[in-house]
Amino acid sequence: MVQNHRLMVSYDGTDYHGWQRQPGKKTIQGEIEKALTSISGKKIPLVGAGRTDSGVHAYGQTAHFKASISLHPEEMIRALNSRLPFDIRVTEIQRMKPEFHARKSALSKVYSYRIYNSPHIPPFVTRYVYHWRAPLQVEAMKEASQMFVRKADFSPFSSNQRLYPVRRVMRSVIQKEGPEIIYTVEAEGFLRYMVRTMVGTLLEIGKGKISPDIIEEIFQSKNRSPKSPTAPAHGLCLMRINYPPQIFP
Amino acid sequence: MVQNHRLMVSYDGTDYHGWQRQPGKKTIQGEIEKALTSISGKKIPLVGAGRTDSGVHAYGQTAHFKASISLHPEEMIRALNSRLPFDIRVTEIQRMKPEFHARKSALSKVYSYRIYNSPHIPPFVTRYVYHWRAPLQVEAMKEASQMFVRKADFSPFSSNQRLYPVRRVMRSVIQKEGPEIIYTVEAEGFLRYMVRTMVGTLLEIGKGKISPDIIEEIFQSKNRSPKSPTAPAHGLCLMRINYPPQIFP
Repeated sequence: MVQNHRLMVSYDGTDYHGWQRQPGKKTIQGEIEKALTSISGKKIPLVGAGRTDSGVHAYGQTAHFKASISLHPEEMIRALNSRLPFDIRVTEIQRMKPEFHARKSALSKVYSYRIYNSPHIPPFVTRYVYHWRAPLQVEAMKEASQMFVRKADFSPFSSNQRLYPVRRVMRSVIQKEGPEIIYTVEAEGFLRYMVRTMVGTLLEIGKGKISPDIIEEIFQSKNRSPKSPTAPAHGLCLMRINYPPQIFP
Repeated sequence: MVQNHRLMVSYDGTDYHGWQRQPGKKTIQGEIEKALTSISGKKIPLVGAGRTDSGVHAYGQTAHFKASISLHPEEMIRALNSRLPFDIRVTEIQRMKPEFHARKSALSKVYSYRIYNSPHIPPFVTRYVYHWRAPLQVEAMKEASQMFVRKADFSPFSSNQRLYPVRRVMRSVIQKEGPEIIYTVEAEGFLRYMVRTMVGTLLEIGKGKISPDIIEEIFQSKNRSPKSPTAPAHGLCLMRINYPPQIFP
């Protein structure tokens, strides 16, 4: 019997061309689909909640697939992980109602961006943080981060023009943890490069190059600003996809 | 003027054949000496406090070298790090009295070994922890770990027979931190594979295969026991070298 499966996955995106399947390129979706074929003998399309870009990591990406696999979910996890490269790990599989859809059922997505703000960086975190040597003005960054909480046209903080560029950001906070400055943002959805452009702007504010007020100006202008560069991919991590509780069995 | 320099270094040992310089092989000492030659134009031998094995990491390895380099220590760190691969990072350089010797002046060394004890492991820690799926008896491991605190012939917990196999272990503790079991051990010095063999023994105790008392028996027997396997290298990290405070300028 074909059943709907929810799959939670963590990955180190360093060596991948992002989530989305691409012919001839190593991608997360591609690797998991290959493993699914290996355990089922069939082509099984996997639908991810968010398409992470090349080099971006995920702690809690969610995906779904419909298939008839006789293994118990816990056995399926083991079978998949034994076939997957060590930098992609399936952490949960659950059988869901047929209507569950990883992307369409999602209420919100949470991303975090790690900035390592210290002259020297230990080698163990290099892949997961953006290293900035000179001191940053964290208080200004905190103040600025709150200005992103709104429902608005976010195309000035994105790489492309979409027909429906309005997004609702419900959480946007900067926290300091030891040498790290961690930015967490939650929204119903994101435009392309949106988090990285927001972080790029916060970094310019942290460096003292622009003031937090400029965020309001950029929103008003409706255009990309040279004051809003895009921060590098490797500091970004998709943390979690939120779903309505009643969707779970 | 030739000066004596203390150097602190962190590295991810995954892709290296250990600390010690070896012709034709990528080693930590070899890479740092190459970087020193590049900034000074001379061959500068580097003396490390401990020779970590292939695949073992270091958070706080210490080394010294004698050279005449006109750069300020902070500039030297930057010059070295810009020449070193990203998985080796110099974190401190300090000019010392001529008598400071990274290995001979050391009072003690601290190692830690991380065991990730959970069915599934996130991809971000795979390089730094030993993954053990089935539950381990942490209380038995805690009790057993204390039995290593002694001055004794540690050759039953080592790979080779040394003329002077007596070592003094002053700290040996197991801590549970979330899904991780972390073993920390401090000694004046260690025999080859000593920490990994102690951990291998603690793991057998955690699995319930042997009881903590067996440690005493193994010490008495003066011989390697098949009950003491060697744990894999990648869970091990050299944390810190302790020196007498008066040696610092």
